[in-house]
Amino acid sequence: MAQAQKITPRAQDFSEWYNDVVMQAELADYSPVRGSMVIRPHGYRLWELMQRALDDMFKATGHQNAYFPLLIPLSFLAKEAEHVEGFAKEVAIVTHTRLRATGKAGADAIAVDPESKLEEPLVVRPTSETIIYAMFAKWIQSYRDLPLLMNQWCNIVRWELRTRLFLRTTEFLWQEGHTAHATEAEAEAEARQMLGVYRTFQEEWMAMPVLTGRKTESEKFAGALRTYAVEALMQDNKALQAGTSHNLGQNFAKAFNVQYQTAAGGLEHVWNTSWGVTTRMIGGLVMTHGDDNGLVCPPRLAPVQVVIVPIWKSGEERSQVSGVGGQVKAELDKAGIRVELDARENLKPGAKYFEWEARGVPVRLEVGPRDVAAGQVMLARRTGGKAPLKLDGLTAGVQGVLQDIQAGLFKTALERREANSIRGVTKARFIEFMKHSGGFAYGGFCGSDACETEIKEQTGATVRVLPDPEFRSPEAPATCMWCGKPSVAEAVWAQAY
Amino acid sequence: MAQAQKITPRAQDFSEWYNDVVMQAELADYSPVRGSMVIRPHGYRLWELMQRALDDMFKATGHQNAYFPLLIPLSFLAKEAEHVEGFAKEVAIVTHTRLRATGKAGADAIAVDPESKLEEPLVVRPTSETIIYAMFAKWIQSYRDLPLLMNQWCNIVRWELRTRLFLRTTEFLWQEGHTAHATEAEAEAEARQMLGVYRTFQEEWMAMPVLTGRKTESEKFAGALRTYAVEALMQDNKALQAGTSHNLGQNFAKAFNVQYQTAAGGLEHVWNTSWGVTTRMIGGLVMTHGDDNGLVCPPRLAPVQVVIVPIWKSGEERSQVSGVGGQVKAELDKAGIRVELDARENLKPGAKYFEWEARGVPVRLEVGPRDVAAGQVMLARRTGGKAPLKLDGLTAGVQGVLQDIQAGLFKTALERREANSIRGVTKARFIEFMKHSGGFAYGGFCGSDACETEIKEQTGATVRVLPDPEFRSPEAPATCMWCGKPSVAEAVWAQAY
Repeated sequence: MAQAQKITPRAQDFSEWYNDVVMQAELADYSPVRGSMVIRPHGYRLWELMQRALDDMFKATGHQNAYFPLLIPLSFLAKEAEHVEGFAKEVAIVTHTRLRATGKAGADAIAVDPESKLEEPLVVRPTSETIIYAMFAKWIQSYRDLPLLMNQWCNIVRWELRTRLFLRTTEFLWQEGHTAHATEAEAEAEARQMLGVYRTFQEEWMAMPVLTGRKTESEKFAGALRTYAVEALMQDNKALQAGTSHNLGQNFAKAFNVQYQTAAGGLEHVWNTSWGVTTRMIGGLVMTHGDDNGLVCPPRLAPVQVVIVPIWKSGEERSQVSGVGGQVKAELDKAGIRVELDARENLKPGAKYFEWEARGVPVRLEVGPRDVAAGQVMLARRTGGKAPLKLDGLTAGVQGVLQDIQAGLFKTALERREANSIRGVTKARFIEFMKHSGGFAYGGFCGSDACETEIKEQTGATVRVLPDPEFRSPEAPATCMWCGKPSVAEAVWAQAY
Repeated sequence: MAQAQKITPRAQDFSEWYNDVVMQAELADYSPVRGSMVIRPHGYRLWELMQRALDDMFKATGHQNAYFPLLIPLSFLAKEAEHVEGFAKEVAIVTHTRLRATGKAGADAIAVDPESKLEEPLVVRPTSETIIYAMFAKWIQSYRDLPLLMNQWCNIVRWELRTRLFLRTTEFLWQEGHTAHATEAEAEAEARQMLGVYRTFQEEWMAMPVLTGRKTESEKFAGALRTYAVEALMQDNKALQAGTSHNLGQNFAKAFNVQYQTAAGGLEHVWNTSWGVTTRMIGGLVMTHGDDNGLVCPPRLAPVQVVIVPIWKSGEERSQVSGVGGQVKAELDKAGIRVELDARENLKPGAKYFEWEARGVPVRLEVGPRDVAAGQVMLARRTGGKAPLKLDGLTAGVQGVLQDIQAGLFKTALERREANSIRGVTKARFIEFMKHSGGFAYGGFCGSDACETEIKEQTGATVRVLPDPEFRSPEAPATCMWCGKPSVAEAVWAQAY
């Protein structure tokens, strides 16, 4: 592990704090490639655990994984007009396929061979609707082939100018679900179902409370009929869009001619959905739970759930505490708990605590000579608090604490979100809220582009969602909090990542 | 599932047979993107099962997964001279980052924006040594940081002109291990260890026997000190390189300045290894075990290990056999066996058999009214043979048959390989062998480029490996089978994919 360094306190500079936590926890590192990052083993393990949980949920809802090409012909992207317009300014484009020696020395010795220019440029996928629905057109003939429920885990490239580790990078990892249905109602139900899967995952696994709802026209996915999103509130009171689910209507089916024969013998276009979450969720996890000592990892997703630190002075003590440490590790291992025994000799216990705290490990078990004599270990929670735990029945005790920490993290995050949400805002209150504290502001909305644009310009806030019924205020607002015209829907505004 | 179509017999056209099997089993499909394929759910599931088994073996040998950027600056690739020369003719190069509307109509409405040209072109990774060792230089300071043992699962692009589903495609999926060590001996031991992991996986999971050994200078990886490979013999007697493991020496460490402080306080370059296997293995599995009815999947990797087909005429029979089918499915499910119950009503049993055979399912359980009455099912093996199996103790019976099929597939493949291998060849015998049958030919080799080139030109055969001791002939050949000069090593030649 790298030399431990000081983490900037959140109150001093939240953005610096975030970068420090990501670097100290060794989740990721800057790469020499502009806008791209390296996901280091600790961060990648977190992603693998997220993938495993989500993949099980996708499979349980009938989806199958597949893999589609990275490079998409420009003409495909261009087939859906809104879609290409949405991505035109941020695509990496492959134009050549060979290098050649120039005869020059040093850095100029190798260059792109102009004779290898492609007839048609290829776009590195910024999303895969076009190539996937081109294949769907080949695979779908009859109503018997529907619904077609697929998912892909892959890398994506969007040429971003301002990048942040995990939150916004030129390349990121994600999953993209793509489905085809016989009716609009089925597509709508699917889009809503997968939004629910994201909410369940983010609340139950990430311990990150989310609002669900619909995006406004200006924030919806390029090419979609409507977009739903899950939105979380970070500790700096900025919102993070943590996943989206789109009802694509028949837009792509028409562009790619995806038709099916109905039971009655007619020919209809299918109805599509697509939905995705990305490595950005790791940034959301950091900014939801982290503290000034570093990462705090919810137990269900922690790459290391328990670390055992033996404490000794003499050689005799060392063999004693290491023996017990090894036994405890074996016992927890056997119960399927992700556990490490930190028996490094060149590091003092305090330095070890510091490192494992920065990496977010939920539970630390300290094993000292007096603990061993008393038939116990000391259990320290990453979220605070320390108490002895008997060796007898230790596994059940640890499991209980892990569950308790998981539940506590969610509760704390939910209370924080609610404490930073205001309802029934007026224009004046809204402006002040966005200027001084930020958070989720609920209020009436007339639905006009003009209000959305003005609000964004004057406060930096955008409509995060038109919330689903369970998140709406008890009384529907009558007027737009900005212009005073009749409200068409309650909206939740926030400044956002 | 698609309409079943006839599979070309192997004896008629092996290459057509291969494509038919891949398409009928729905492992993959041609995509509209030149040289790229789509991996369909059945093929992707096979890849996931391969990944899981290999990943467990990588982790058990101390490796951690990470993720590095897709796009590599041209200057990085150019830093190791042999390396860039090896890949110069087959790289996809990103040169621009924006599209723009042209004002024209139709297909020409969108084009690459010339003003978005990158200062330095980016290469879509054809392999990741350069970007990974650039990061290693940042992470490695002292001998305490060694060995550094990493692995990456990702996509790769190499611009291939002649492509074949799975065997050679512009884009493919793989894993690439990358490690750094303090000494040459440790790097050599690592490269050899991972070659052993590949052999174990391919023999014990894929039931595909392989030769291991070293590549000649002309066949080694661009930038390596030496390359080891696993080589398998397909049913058409052509060899398939199924994985490689490279001792990279200090070539990349010097190019990227990866140095460490020794315990004594000196500064040394590290020693690297890299090793990889790809989705090509799926092609190897098809060509090792497939028959004229389609795919034959080794049980340990079969996406579906058992299919249950209920057989009925009357409605009463149907409810009876479906009930038993459901019970059997639940029982096998519970034991962790991957099982499907095919209760489709619009398809006759024979058509179902045909489909599941094409998809390679190792065991079929037929449940008819007379079977139910006798307290049994009929068990049909994909590899031939049919016998009743009592419902009492069914799970253990099925497990035994799956193990038996796994072992039988390996034995059959090994016998076939040995029957198509000749040892101690003379030049005349070699030419005749390569002309008429093909296979693995063992013989003396002088080690000269001249002989290798001539042999390739005249027979199409290349040195697959200089085999490891256990594969060598009892008596070392004294002379080169081609030129008659003294032999420096026994070699195994074959025509290859």
